Amino acid sequence: MNNTKAWGARAGDKPLEPMDIARRTPGARDVQIEIAYCGVCHSDLHTVRSEWGGTRYPCVPGHEIVGEVTAVGDAVTAFKVGDTVGVGCLVGSCQRCPSCAEGLEQYCENGFVGTYNGPTADPPGHTLGGYSQRIVVDEKFVLKIRHPKEQLAAVAPLLCAGITTYSPLRHWKVGPGSKVGIVGIGGLGHMGIKIAHAMGAHTVAFTTSEGKRQDALDLGADAVVVSRNAAEMRAHAGSFDFILDTVAASHDLDAFTQLLKRDGTLCLVGVPEHPHPSPNVGAIIFGRKAIAGSLIGGLPETQEMLDFCAERGIVAEIEMIPIQKIDEAYDRMQKSDVKYRFVIDSASIGR
Amino acid sequence: MNNTKAWGARAGDKPLEPMDIARRTPGARDVQIEIAYCGVCHSDLHTVRSEWGGTRYPCVPGHEIVGEVTAVGDAVTAFKVGDTVGVGCLVGSCQRCPSCAEGLEQYCENGFVGTYNGPTADPPGHTLGGYSQRIVVDEKFVLKIRHPKEQLAAVAPLLCAGITTYSPLRHWKVGPGSKVGIVGIGGLGHMGIKIAHAMGAHTVAFTTSEGKRQDALDLGADAVVVSRNAAEMRAHAGSFDFILDTVAASHDLDAFTQLLKRDGTLCLVGVPEHPHPSPNVGAIIFGRKAIAGSLIGGLPETQEMLDFCAERGIVAEIEMIPIQKIDEAYDRMQKSDVKYRFVIDSASIGR
Repeated sequence: MNNTKAWGARAGDKPLEPMDIARRTPGARDVQIEIAYCGVCHSDLHTVRSEWGGTRYPCVPGHEIVGEVTAVGDAVTAFKVGDTVGVGCLVGSCQRCPSCAEGLEQYCENGFVGTYNGPTADPPGHTLGGYSQRIVVDEKFVLKIRHPKEQLAAVAPLLCAGITTYSPLRHWKVGPGSKVGIVGIGGLGHMGIKIAHAMGAHTVAFTTSEGKRQDALDLGADAVVVSRNAAEMRAHAGSFDFILDTVAASHDLDAFTQLLKRDGTLCLVGVPEHPHPSPNVGAIIFGRKAIAGSLIGGLPETQEMLDFCAERGIVAEIEMIPIQKIDEAYDRMQKSDVKYRFVIDSASIGR
Repeated sequence: MNNTKAWGARAGDKPLEPMDIARRTPGARDVQIEIAYCGVCHSDLHTVRSEWGGTRYPCVPGHEIVGEVTAVGDAVTAFKVGDTVGVGCLVGSCQRCPSCAEGLEQYCENGFVGTYNGPTADPPGHTLGGYSQRIVVDEKFVLKIRHPKEQLAAVAPLLCAGITTYSPLRHWKVGPGSKVGIVGIGGLGHMGIKIAHAMGAHTVAFTTSEGKRQDALDLGADAVVVSRNAAEMRAHAGSFDFILDTVAASHDLDAFTQLLKRDGTLCLVGVPEHPHPSPNVGAIIFGRKAIAGSLIGGLPETQEMLDFCAERGIVAEIEMIPIQKIDEAYDRMQKSDVKYRFVIDSASIGR
């Protein structure tokens, strides 16, 4: 065991604070990573505050991790000391079920091991995430980063926000000739816009806020619709092949199913705290439409996404913070006051 | 114009009564059909009573029509006098939009013309359906029936109940190796069981009623689950490729999304009067599942379904009634007291 410095919460009603945690000595298949940056995801906040229930404390969140390999186990073949790597939402899965066999570890039928708050034999019995200086991860769950070094901080959010939007866009075969909607221009949505546009789709951003119109165009949207404007919405009725809805807050889904073409899909990637209004069944029957869901992505697809983004120079838009500002960042994130992702400079964790 | 006898309602709060209606003289592309039998669909009742709103009176329902050709227009090539034919839910569509071009007239982007209560130039300005002795229909919307004559009455329900279940089972590629659920064992569900089984799928019927267990097995289900039994439901968790939900009454969809495999689809074919409880979004995100809808079927697929059923001797289970018993039939249908479809003997309409 090696001690490492981290920031975590000791209870759901306590703020994050510095703490020492133990990382296992790298085993034969392990990669030890010195963390350079870690993105700040809404899930971090939900878990720290046990808003979804089931949080084990101390809780060290963080699953948008990038850094450098500082040690590898004897059996590790894919990585060597000095490599630039990433770790996303998963650090383990059964590796035996059909989903794992297909490289869809996020749907592991025996339950994946999350990068934090997941079951592990390591102390304290649950995984501790990327708000720390170092992490030790099975090489199967480590990703190669091929972006230039100076982009590294902005690569971190690809590990969750990037793959969460890339995976459904790929699965539903978005590309040239598709008309794609991205609902919500936040941490996830801003990546969805960039990725859908890069895939060659005609990409329309939906926002509730007139003030985000220019921002969305700057991110690569081909058009922007203010979803509170009924006439603007009506003009797009029945025209979308696929709409990716990144908004977790409870909202009206019918407004978007009405915009789908026949056989179109509205894909949700956020779990609302309170249920959405029950969707209108007639709106999906008349048009053979679907409301679907998608969860992050598996390891092969996450690597594919990283490489896709590296080749095209795609990174997240970020605001860098020292860990000492994490509470303020959480508050601002809840007010959507960030363009578009906070990233922790891990060097601050040692201070 | 030719007068023909029919049964229809003069208002939403009035019972059906005998009436004379006019049918157009067959035009160049028209087929005139002497109706032998007409199935009784829940939509008939909803429309007659204007429960969906928008019913135009007088209303003559009926869209599961079978009979014999008695005249054809000069340009008709596919049918001749004496042919046994059927007419389903559609008697017109724009024939120009992409959906029509693909033979998916039920999704006509300019609105299909329903067999009753649809717009038409014929008097009285809206279409009048199959609770009548005769109907005149554009040959594009007439179907060939290849079943033996003695099965004709039991073929009628294929025109709506049959295609409504066949189309989604085909679209979602049900076949050997699939595990398929059919929710509800009524007019639609009993056809779903027969067709899914005939397609080679492992077919599981879901019913709320222990008393329907043997019935479902007799219809061809490989297994039956009483959906009120939590332990029985749990035993099937995560195991279905596709579930066809034929229940229009408001009910819990989560019970069924939980039974889907990764990438599975729960397909709804009924529009509930009151919304279903809002489906759990987590249950579809964890497993990339979908809740979809499907509407009847287009003309080419309806013909395919009729031929599929003729080759395999598949017909509906019916209870024949004279038109004079239609009110009683509606009452019993609302109590699900029919195995499984009422069919009107059209000879009774003249009496």
